[in-house]
Amino acid sequence: MVAVTDQSTHPQPLADRSPAELDTFLAEQRSAYEALAARGLTLDLTRGKPATEQLDLADRLLQLPGRATDSSGADTRNYGGLHGGADLRAIFGELLGVPTNQIVAQGNSSLMMMREVLSYLWLKGGVTSERPWAAEERVTFICPVPGYDRHFTLTDWFGIEMVTVPMHADGPDADAIAELVATDASIKGMWLVPTYANPTGSVTSTEVARKLASMPTAAPDFTIMWDNAYAWHHLTATETPSADIIGLCAEAGNPHRAVVFASTSKITYAGAGVGFLAGSSETVDWYVDHLGQGAIGPDKVNHLRHAEFFGSAQGVRDHMARHREVLAPKFAAVQEVLTGRLGGLGVAEWSEPAGGYFVNLDVLDGTASRVVQLAKEAGIALTPAGSSFPHRDDPRDRNIRLAPSFPVLDEVTEAMEAVATCVLLAAAEKLHG
Amino acid sequence: MVAVTDQSTHPQPLADRSPAELDTFLAEQRSAYEALAARGLTLDLTRGKPATEQLDLADRLLQLPGRATDSSGADTRNYGGLHGGADLRAIFGELLGVPTNQIVAQGNSSLMMMREVLSYLWLKGGVTSERPWAAEERVTFICPVPGYDRHFTLTDWFGIEMVTVPMHADGPDADAIAELVATDASIKGMWLVPTYANPTGSVTSTEVARKLASMPTAAPDFTIMWDNAYAWHHLTATETPSADIIGLCAEAGNPHRAVVFASTSKITYAGAGVGFLAGSSETVDWYVDHLGQGAIGPDKVNHLRHAEFFGSAQGVRDHMARHREVLAPKFAAVQEVLTGRLGGLGVAEWSEPAGGYFVNLDVLDGTASRVVQLAKEAGIALTPAGSSFPHRDDPRDRNIRLAPSFPVLDEVTEAMEAVATCVLLAAAEKLHG
Repeated sequence: MVAVTDQSTHPQPLADRSPAELDTFLAEQRSAYEALAARGLTLDLTRGKPATEQLDLADRLLQLPGRATDSSGADTRNYGGLHGGADLRAIFGELLGVPTNQIVAQGNSSLMMMREVLSYLWLKGGVTSERPWAAEERVTFICPVPGYDRHFTLTDWFGIEMVTVPMHADGPDADAIAELVATDASIKGMWLVPTYANPTGSVTSTEVARKLASMPTAAPDFTIMWDNAYAWHHLTATETPSADIIGLCAEAGNPHRAVVFASTSKITYAGAGVGFLAGSSETVDWYVDHLGQGAIGPDKVNHLRHAEFFGSAQGVRDHMARHREVLAPKFAAVQEVLTGRLGGLGVAEWSEPAGGYFVNLDVLDGTASRVVQLAKEAGIALTPAGSSFPHRDDPRDRNIRLAPSFPVLDEVTEAMEAVATCVLLAAAEKLHG
Repeated sequence: MVAVTDQSTHPQPLADRSPAELDTFLAEQRSAYEALAARGLTLDLTRGKPATEQLDLADRLLQLPGRATDSSGADTRNYGGLHGGADLRAIFGELLGVPTNQIVAQGNSSLMMMREVLSYLWLKGGVTSERPWAAEERVTFICPVPGYDRHFTLTDWFGIEMVTVPMHADGPDADAIAELVATDASIKGMWLVPTYANPTGSVTSTEVARKLASMPTAAPDFTIMWDNAYAWHHLTATETPSADIIGLCAEAGNPHRAVVFASTSKITYAGAGVGFLAGSSETVDWYVDHLGQGAIGPDKVNHLRHAEFFGSAQGVRDHMARHREVLAPKFAAVQEVLTGRLGGLGVAEWSEPAGGYFVNLDVLDGTASRVVQLAKEAGIALTPAGSSFPHRDDPRDRNIRLAPSFPVLDEVTEAMEAVATCVLLAAAEKLHG
């Protein structure tokens, strides 16, 4: 698990209490839960959705771009330009540390681009493939867990098998991955949210990234799906830079190993932003070539709209600081409630992320489903237990993903108080037996 | 072939001329071509791109939507809404004659949606499939020719074989299709641009559509990819309605046979419009279900932007009338030059479309490539000969697709004069032997 905050030592851990004390504790929690349920709340901590206040920050977009031609003089309204608008590619190329020819801008969904990439790999094979993946007997992906549910759903849709490795505070367990990929040629790739990972908040260190970039792989076309969804989504003044996976892969002699994704979904509008793909120039050429077999060009007006809005890479950073002002208090509220209510009891561990959209909560083994059920019955929607694992299967039934971005601050506190009550009741039930 | 305009009977057909007369004619054409080449023109009739003047008609979009919530109160800026914005779906549902639950609005490219549909059919199978198409020994598509090059490119990308049938003025040769599909279970589908087809301008009649909807097919999941790209793109006061393929399929007991595509690419912006998919409610559910395995929602702000811009279905029709004012004179100029320069000579036939973006020009067998080459050398870019056939293989080397929308009117006339010169020289060379 990642960064854990359970430093309060005042309460007596539940596991150390006598049966009689546990009786009392259980009765107290039942009573607290009944009071909670009686309030008839309707709160939602399920998904990493930006709050209305965050979306409002970008509302100048609703009247942009105002003009039709970009700085090169290209008419963004017409067909063409498979690579996307050059102005916006330049801005995000700078942010991702790649030249413009190594980045493309596309539609509103980087997830759709990941599907596209998997489609091309599946039907045609990649830059370093010997054959299309569909022609392999078996294709396996490494999934660091807990991880992003939509990655796993998409992987499963393709019929790709999934093998899990632990996610640590400094990224996925690179030694475990290196061992797996060294001999198993069916392992064709891995997922990774490198910065402020969903849901753990982990930041993949350069050391871990270097191992992933350089490890020998039995499959010649082992692909790191580097989903840098939260690269600039800092919650503290420390703006941790992402590891330069493209550079590290090139250095290691595996230049085409990483495909990098990013988007403005959590910078401007979650539903109307711009997705990006970056990689070696060969990877970008490969992507655009296949794309062009069934596409004429992305929405370049939206690219121009975004380029106008940001102005520059610094404009993106400045904009993210405004998001931080909205988000940081909500994440602080989560920490405050968890520490205050659960600290020292030995019934939960949780992450204290420095960025991103999630707090990872690990409750007592075997109680996550019960917590989610209790919360639901009290009107608090939580992501289904197990969601952060392939096939929604959390072998220890302990993981819960908290997403505090969408509700307003008071609701976050209220919802977290409710979650704490549910965690405590489920723990008391479990330990009481 | 489709509607042909070669009514001028004054000139003597080339085929009737004596060798001496042909000598003279060839010399005249060589001289005319030399004069043309000496002018150093740079003109382009290659693609069906809207002209700048047409794009300008929609420029209110550059400052829309101004607000973030649609008429249902949904915040278009955030995640969700896989089916697309309800306001815009209602408008285009009315135009396509389907209820809102049978239409979805997505990104800027209906072609990308066609690729998605083929992906889902390929990897998962459709509503009436026995298995994924990838599990079939062979998959074949029927391609009416001449047809849309990008359909053929995409089909070929999937490794789908293509068999051609002739396109007539009232649509594809339905009897030929019915015969093919009756016994060959590998034939899984067909392409069709039903209204103002690319490039012939053909309009599929209700009678032909009914045959396609009702014909017995050996494949249970035979799919009509009904690409209604030009449904409202009339060039005359007669606004020919498209056949109601979804209704006809339902009537015939094959309700899931047709998948209908449309877009605003040639209504608002070619690069920043909205694509639509319509079909039976089961087809739409099937599409959205697979889409949702790797997508969170389309750009609903662009949907709202478009709904605001149009206001209603009538708003779309009114807008198309403004396009017609720009386009009709260009298409008239094409007819005027073709009739004036080639009429009566027996060296070419051409379509006189009542809508859409193309004029289909059939020159003397074996001379299309030569015409395109001559034009290129004189600075006139034409779509490569054969483009309207699978694998770019026009067995008679006679078909040329003319796209007069993008250049301004004077340039259309100038380019067509040049094309006529090239057609005449190639014909003279051919007949002279």
